Amino acid sequence: MIKITLPDGAVKEYEEGASALDVAKSISEGLARKVLAANINGEVWDATRPINSDASLKLLTWDDTEAKSTFWHSSAHLMAEAVETMFPGVKFWVGPAIEKGFYYDMDLGDKKIAEEDLALLEKKMNELARQNNGFARKEISKADAIKYFEAKGDEYKLDLLNGLTDGGITFYTQGQFTDLCRGPHIPNTGFIKAIKLTSIAGAYWKGDEKNKQLTRIYGITFPNQKELDEYLAMLEEAKKRDHRKLGKELGIFTFEDNVGPGLPLWMPNGTIIIEELEKLAKETEKAAGYKRVVTPNIAKESMYITSGHLPYYADSMFPPMEMDGEKYYLKPMNCPHHHKIFDAEQKSYKDLPYRIAEYGTCYRYEQSGELFGLMRVRCLHMNDAHIYCSKEQFAQEFMAVNEMYIKYFKIFGVDKYVMRLSLHSPEKLGQKYVNEPALWKETEDMVRKVLIETNTPFVEVQDEAAFYGPKIDVQIWSAIGKEFTLATNQVDFAQGRSFKLSFTNKDNHPEVPLIIHRAPLGTHERFIGFLLEHFAGKFPTWLAPLQVKILPISDKFMDYANTILQKLKNADIRVEIDDRNEKVGKKIRDTELARVPYMLVIGEKEMNEGKASIRRQGIGDLGAKDINEFIREISKEIKERSM
Amino acid sequence: MIKITLPDGAVKEYEEGASALDVAKSISEGLARKVLAANINGEVWDATRPINSDASLKLLTWDDTEAKSTFWHSSAHLMAEAVETMFPGVKFWVGPAIEKGFYYDMDLGDKKIAEEDLALLEKKMNELARQNNGFARKEISKADAIKYFEAKGDEYKLDLLNGLTDGGITFYTQGQFTDLCRGPHIPNTGFIKAIKLTSIAGAYWKGDEKNKQLTRIYGITFPNQKELDEYLAMLEEAKKRDHRKLGKELGIFTFEDNVGPGLPLWMPNGTIIIEELEKLAKETEKAAGYKRVVTPNIAKESMYITSGHLPYYADSMFPPMEMDGEKYYLKPMNCPHHHKIFDAEQKSYKDLPYRIAEYGTCYRYEQSGELFGLMRVRCLHMNDAHIYCSKEQFAQEFMAVNEMYIKYFKIFGVDKYVMRLSLHSPEKLGQKYVNEPALWKETEDMVRKVLIETNTPFVEVQDEAAFYGPKIDVQIWSAIGKEFTLATNQVDFAQGRSFKLSFTNKDNHPEVPLIIHRAPLGTHERFIGFLLEHFAGKFPTWLAPLQVKILPISDKFMDYANTILQKLKNADIRVEIDDRNEKVGKKIRDTELARVPYMLVIGEKEMNEGKASIRRQGIGDLGAKDINEFIREISKEIKERSM
Repeated sequence: MIKITLPDGAVKEYEEGASALDVAKSISEGLARKVLAANINGEVWDATRPINSDASLKLLTWDDTEAKSTFWHSSAHLMAEAVETMFPGVKFWVGPAIEKGFYYDMDLGDKKIAEEDLALLEKKMNELARQNNGFARKEISKADAIKYFEAKGDEYKLDLLNGLTDGGITFYTQGQFTDLCRGPHIPNTGFIKAIKLTSIAGAYWKGDEKNKQLTRIYGITFPNQKELDEYLAMLEEAKKRDHRKLGKELGIFTFEDNVGPGLPLWMPNGTIIIEELEKLAKETEKAAGYKRVVTPNIAKESMYITSGHLPYYADSMFPPMEMDGEKYYLKPMNCPHHHKIFDAEQKSYKDLPYRIAEYGTCYRYEQSGELFGLMRVRCLHMNDAHIYCSKEQFAQEFMAVNEMYIKYFKIFGVDKYVMRLSLHSPEKLGQKYVNEPALWKETEDMVRKVLIETNTPFVEVQDEAAFYGPKIDVQIWSAIGKEFTLATNQVDFAQGRSFKLSFTNKDNHPEVPLIIHRAPLGTHERFIGFLLEHFAGKFPTWLAPLQVKILPISDKFMDYANTILQKLKNADIRVEIDDRNEKVGKKIRDTELARVPYMLVIGEKEMNEGKASIRRQGIGDLGAKDINEFIREISKEIKERSM
Repeated sequence: MIKITLPDGAVKEYEEGASALDVAKSISEGLARKVLAANINGEVWDATRPINSDASLKLLTWDDTEAKSTFWHSSAHLMAEAVETMFPGVKFWVGPAIEKGFYYDMDLGDKKIAEEDLALLEKKMNELARQNNGFARKEISKADAIKYFEAKGDEYKLDLLNGLTDGGITFYTQGQFTDLCRGPHIPNTGFIKAIKLTSIAGAYWKGDEKNKQLTRIYGITFPNQKELDEYLAMLEEAKKRDHRKLGKELGIFTFEDNVGPGLPLWMPNGTIIIEELEKLAKETEKAAGYKRVVTPNIAKESMYITSGHLPYYADSMFPPMEMDGEKYYLKPMNCPHHHKIFDAEQKSYKDLPYRIAEYGTCYRYEQSGELFGLMRVRCLHMNDAHIYCSKEQFAQEFMAVNEMYIKYFKIFGVDKYVMRLSLHSPEKLGQKYVNEPALWKETEDMVRKVLIETNTPFVEVQDEAAFYGPKIDVQIWSAIGKEFTLATNQVDFAQGRSFKLSFTNKDNHPEVPLIIHRAPLGTHERFIGFLLEHFAGKFPTWLAPLQVKILPISDKFMDYANTILQKLKNADIRVEIDDRNEKVGKKIRDTELARVPYMLVIGEKEMNEGKASIRRQGIGDLGAKDINEFIREISKEIKERSM
């Protein structure tokens, strides 16, 4: 018998060789029907794989990220099986799950696959899925594996095998298809109920453009048709809300060849949004006891050697400028400059927590192929701040930061979010992470404890920490359900020591402060990109570049329009008159298209009564209102930052 | 007879060979006693030099910059004469007038001069000055000049002679001292009534550290003792008000080795001032119809080839970063980025004037030896904006900008200012200036016309324009009479064409806009440096980093102190409590020293009456006041930006 420990701490006994599926069945048949894979001692396994010794076990269903990933990887095998049926002789390279769905790279020889063929492939995949074929795992010696693929004449899998060591090599077979694969897989193809192959692309073998170009087919699958339909509808909606398209239409930002890729120029309308966001951040941070600072965009090489950026982060930095025999770098983060400000004046425990904030402009090198609208850029205006505190103050400060995140989510109508706790990877100490195993454990525990105690929804991921400490990436979902990683909250036990920062503690001894790096609104670039999609360009009034448009129905009412304009301007409302010689219907349509929250239509009746007919963007006519009353109402809406 | 045209246009006839002094005497003896030099046909001449043909003439007295410069250069000769008396065998290199005073570089051979010797030298200079020795000008052939200095064994003057062409070489002699000198000089040494030698320094011959180090003596002189006393008092006061000293004491800014020279870090108190200045600028610019933009700190090389910065301004730029096979530069100015924003959307005459503003962060290379506190830096936060307009709109726009300058001067209590109209130099077309002689003339005339029509005080200077057009440097004087060049206002006829900018004019044709570059508040760096000295750190309440300090006379009143604190915070006033266990007298002294505008002293009586005893920084006790009344008063003071 073996002992299986479940996530709630319960321990049950099973026959040696029982699988996760057996465990699930022993709990409930209903549960068993939903199990896609299992986490065994921290590793994801096939649900059907025999367990031969005591283990901790967590059943994974569609709601778990790892299960989705397994599901999509199995779908890639299913697609490969379908492709092999339709294109005998095809050779496969790799077929991983990706963030949403999967792809498989393949060499079709002389054959070509067209967009039209995708529907046929989907049909074939559905047919094979309905066969409920199990995914059979088989351990195989390297020699036998090589023999198999030599017989098949598949140089790609042979190349993969070349890099593997004997002992841990496995094949997976479902139906007529066998693949070299480390797994894991779902129990059988029957789980795959809804299939969409989304696109075909070319991809150089091993990403090297000197190699042969392979065919890459992208797809996504779901355990039911409803989820696929919703996903496709979301994609369709996301296309309409594409921040690049809206950003251009609404005069938010632009790119320019002579400035450079990944370097957005913020147009007047985008700058209004930037300034409203900064105003919000400054108000919030002031109330939370932050001071503000302004630091240069560059520093000497010595700064980034001390900070650890050059040893650990050089690939993401811009190349240096050589001047006066020194190398200067554009700052990739604001932290080192902030540390110098902390250090410029002697500190005692009475000065802590010392919180300094800056909307700092940082530069990071991204491969030009990775750049994407405002989502991946090289110039980042970051909602940055650093909190220097003692260990005793840490939990309180960290909680306050979390609360600030949640306050912001409410303001922007973000209902769904999750904190992704990124931990270090012990094997990469000294390379990707500072080599301080004890401090890693201590700070990771501290952060986990706060998240648990505050009931914050979170998941843990290995090997995604910052080089100086554990990190929380905040993932949020837009109104149409698209996921964004926007903000981070990081603990840093390393830079305080490397910068020799200290404060005099209550015992009159020097002590190194802990540092919290936090950026709840992320960068202007990514956050405004998110907001464009989230609101489909229909910003709440406080954020809208133009808040009110006055539409006189003819030139006769221009004087009255100007009177209203001045009144609204005096109330600090962003307002314009549509003085074109156009029908009012056309004016309304154009203003709707420009996503202006309020339209004030004025004619004879309105002028005589000192009123305006109010139209709300996306809602329509709200009837005639006294101008002063309208000003009171919209001012309140703006002040409260209502949605 | 020759015809002399005076500045008022009057033409008088004189004997051939009459001097400017003769002209002055013919007007009034009183005037003649004040004449130091004269401007003859645009060139500064000795007042005693014979005029042999028709000429325009302007008499120069102490109030004229050129006269001061002449006065100080003559003082350098006087000092040299005194040095030669005290140190026979001394050899002189060059002895120019500088912005304030003069220096002379000399080789004292084996001898040394000490600070104590300066008083003796001053005494000798006074003695020689009282001899009323005239400065005699003598034209001399190169051969004779060489003979003279060979006899004297003066290799320095021989080196200077080496670079001169025969024909225009002159000697000047006063008393026992003769120097190779192009002049001009004042009529005689008797004008020099007040003398101060300020310091001794070492200076490498020709500025090259491989050469011998010469001795440089600095001095300043005046036509009367009162002006010298005032000047020395101003220097003394300026030392107390040194922005570097105050900046550190008040936590305004700091420098850090690892960041780099010339790159200030703005501390929390400095950042408050920055944000208040930006708020003022944004309010002012919004009211004046400017839109705001945000642009990256870098751009590709191609941008600065188009703009003309690389051909004309490369020495002031940071070195490039090489990335993806391209060179990127930190922006030395915001204009090219702004032009790209102008160009991003199609413009018609209805969109003009198009005014875009940005507190843009620019980087300029200054020699490390030239860096000085906040006054000469490498990172500049510039109060920048660009106005794109048609020629018809130019005068109106340019006037509005001038008015904005004057509005700012009032706010900051700047009573004395002058606009310095910098023109191009025709010989440097194509090198220092874009080669468009007609456009230079046209725009210089346009600017001059506006200045004259608006009665703006201005002077003209040759060869100091921007490379793209004429420039106005605004010089202002601080409260203690020190002069600062802070802001510029420039016309640009060149970049519009090089960037191919255009708008559709009323005739439906494309037309290139004129561009006005303007920065009334200059850079944060220089402006805050100026303000620190101007206010001696005692900022007006609206600008003060901390506006109110509450001083409870004992711990008993901490609750009441906290109630007041909260009330003031709610009214958006920057306030702190001095909760130290100190006597109130000490608290007051420390708060005075920290230049906090208001102190609220609270004890038993104040608490019982809901009041506080108000102390105004630098004034003293204002008596007890109701808290709400105090809040009303200070809020008004802040809102109105009272001095």
